[in-house]
Amino acid sequence: MGRAERGWLRVVGLGPGPSEWLTDEARAALHGAEHVLGYTTYLARLPALEGKLLHGSDNGDELSRARHGLDLAAQGARVAIVSGGDTGVFGMAAAVFEALESGPAEQRSLDIRVLPGVTAMLAAAARLGAPLGNDFCAINLSDNLKPWAVVENRLTHAARAGFVIALYNPASRARPSQIHAAFAVLRALRPASTLVMFAKAVGRPDEELSVTSLGAADPAQADMRTLLLIGAESTRAIERPGGPPWVYTPRSISTP
Amino acid sequence: MGRAERGWLRVVGLGPGPSEWLTDEARAALHGAEHVLGYTTYLARLPALEGKLLHGSDNGDELSRARHGLDLAAQGARVAIVSGGDTGVFGMAAAVFEALESGPAEQRSLDIRVLPGVTAMLAAAARLGAPLGNDFCAINLSDNLKPWAVVENRLTHAARAGFVIALYNPASRARPSQIHAAFAVLRALRPASTLVMFAKAVGRPDEELSVTSLGAADPAQADMRTLLLIGAESTRAIERPGGPPWVYTPRSISTP
Repeated sequence: MGRAERGWLRVVGLGPGPSEWLTDEARAALHGAEHVLGYTTYLARLPALEGKLLHGSDNGDELSRARHGLDLAAQGARVAIVSGGDTGVFGMAAAVFEALESGPAEQRSLDIRVLPGVTAMLAAAARLGAPLGNDFCAINLSDNLKPWAVVENRLTHAARAGFVIALYNPASRARPSQIHAAFAVLRALRPASTLVMFAKAVGRPDEELSVTSLGAADPAQADMRTLLLIGAESTRAIERPGGPPWVYTPRSISTP
Repeated sequence: MGRAERGWLRVVGLGPGPSEWLTDEARAALHGAEHVLGYTTYLARLPALEGKLLHGSDNGDELSRARHGLDLAAQGARVAIVSGGDTGVFGMAAAVFEALESGPAEQRSLDIRVLPGVTAMLAAAARLGAPLGNDFCAINLSDNLKPWAVVENRLTHAARAGFVIALYNPASRARPSQIHAAFAVLRALRPASTLVMFAKAVGRPDEELSVTSLGAADPAQADMRTLLLIGAESTRAIERPGGPPWVYTPRSISTP
């Protein structure tokens, strides 16, 4: 087998926080890789990267990072491209296939595998109880890559469907106002008593969770490290001594 | 600290398939538990359970399993309740909080933690490429716990929102016809060329993946071990030599 044939690319989800949320499969891929590519912030979190070539790049450089990884693998290198959370959910996996589709045809026979991970909404939900216990949706609130009208249409249908709604990337310094627009859509369609959960930096030392209501929530509380959950009408809180309430969405919906 | 205070309950997601999709956190909780409760099929998959009391029960016994786990923890035992995949997504976590809410008030001060895992749609998506690369929703197709009209309304809004749609529990021997009804709803709202993916027993030795279209798909192909993904209009396939096509949903949606 020639050098080119032995190259591979693994697209790896690191989980949202601590290394205890990494799967064995993801750990083995990182261990076996010669090159590790990712957003600089994520690379800084990784354990045990001695002897590997690290290629950190900025948020927004996803497509060129993906091309770089494919090119290295095509040259025979063992390459891991990492994302926080699950790489298939608003992570690097889609960028890799975008780059593969528009790249040299011979790269389509590369040994590529995507390795799943724990995405932020699952970790946030686990901390809070079981808010995703019934049907739900996930919406990336950034309009860097899609028109705001698409986001607004999705929020409207999600509210009408009765989904629990997970909002990824609710705000950033460049996009401080969209979360306010999103709340305006949701407040017009769901009762003010609807439970709303802000989960900031889940699994990190500065993790912050708060449970409030759609009427009382301050959308400005959300930043780029926040995952927001908007409950369904059936989503409930259970008060408990010595801690924030548990939140869950019952599995059953009774006939009206 | 008395015996009752040292008890705990961990609600643990095992991932959908092999133990390499288990997180370290989940493994440590299983290791530390004295009692492990779960659907008999999942218990049979667990590695290294010597010395533990296993309590297998049937599918459908979720609420009584949850009460049993809470009672054991209240008596001072270290208890793990397990689900395949992520326990917060159509798994045991919601049943545990249902049982907690309706159970003895003193159980609300128990040491309870939910541990996230890789849910089936993330694993299926990883095998296929990156079909969840844009906004998506997850719908449990079983109407055991909700009226079919709710499912139909959710499918309709999901299709109109342009979500990629993950269908959990699409069919069982007792519910062979709902998946046909679901396809009828989706076929009325999405083009026949929409990509459809059947992911059966993902991560298990008998895993089967197939990629077809909404027009050509045979809904009867789905069984209770199948996770179904219905693409958005933008979801695309990339042909490759020596394997099934990669499927991905681009991150961008251009202005119409």
